[in-house]
Amino acid sequence: MSLADDCIFCKILRNEIPSLKVYEDEQTYAFMDINPANPGHVLVIPKYHAPNIFEIPPEWLSACMVTVQKIALAVEKTVSPDGINILQANGEGAAQSVFHLHIHVMPRANGDDLKMNWGHNPGDMEAIAALAEEIKAELA
Amino acid sequence: MSLADDCIFCKILRNEIPSLKVYEDEQTYAFMDINPANPGHVLVIPKYHAPNIFEIPPEWLSACMVTVQKIALAVEKTVSPDGINILQANGEGAAQSVFHLHIHVMPRANGDDLKMNWGHNPGDMEAIAALAEEIKAELA
Repeated sequence: MSLADDCIFCKILRNEIPSLKVYEDEQTYAFMDINPANPGHVLVIPKYHAPNIFEIPPEWLSACMVTVQKIALAVEKTVSPDGINILQANGEGAAQSVFHLHIHVMPRANGDDLKMNWGHNPGDMEAIAALAEEIKAELA
Repeated sequence: MSLADDCIFCKILRNEIPSLKVYEDEQTYAFMDINPANPGHVLVIPKYHAPNIFEIPPEWLSACMVTVQKIALAVEKTVSPDGINILQANGEGAAQSVFHLHIHVMPRANGDDLKMNWGHNPGDMEAIAALAEEIKAELA
């Protein structure tokens, strides 16, 4: 691990801030987005602090993507959404809000009319925690 | 390569349909999106026919992501957008239109107000071709 002091995702990785983990391996960590665009929205992060895709070593990026695939399969089985977007944002024009590279596994619903900058609305924590258990079970 | 007969991206890989290539290696191919959401919009595809993230072997997905990073760096230098989104769509709810896995390197402009399903509007082919040359030069 190579973490930063003041980064909220590094704090999650150090367990200084709670998160609803669904998966973890040596290089990556996956947890529920508590501001979900749709139910089953998961974030995948590397255990390496890099602000964006420009600065992450390629092997860490590859590790993240292998985890993203696992999560996408588990979300597909658990939530059965109409689609899934994999999305990663770099820079303010892309509405990046946390400057530790993260990849969204984002379920889609027909007609949800989501914007690329979809806004952050807190979800129902009980419902998110219940979904986390289902997704985690699918990955076990 | 493991390609399909009727797939438009496999036809591009077999050179049966022209494309504005910016980069190629053993496992991946990158070319300009001719319906760009913004100038400098590039697609990265594996030289392996899989419809989506659920069915692509992880090593091919990793190879794509390493190429995506190279392209993102080149687009950042060439276009200097306000941000860059990396986006991949699975299923109709996510507006997937070509069923060969592809990853968008999508420059963003402040206030472009793009939707996740941003629609396909043909770009100016001369401008796209000129940008392709710049991005290709950055990658050489």
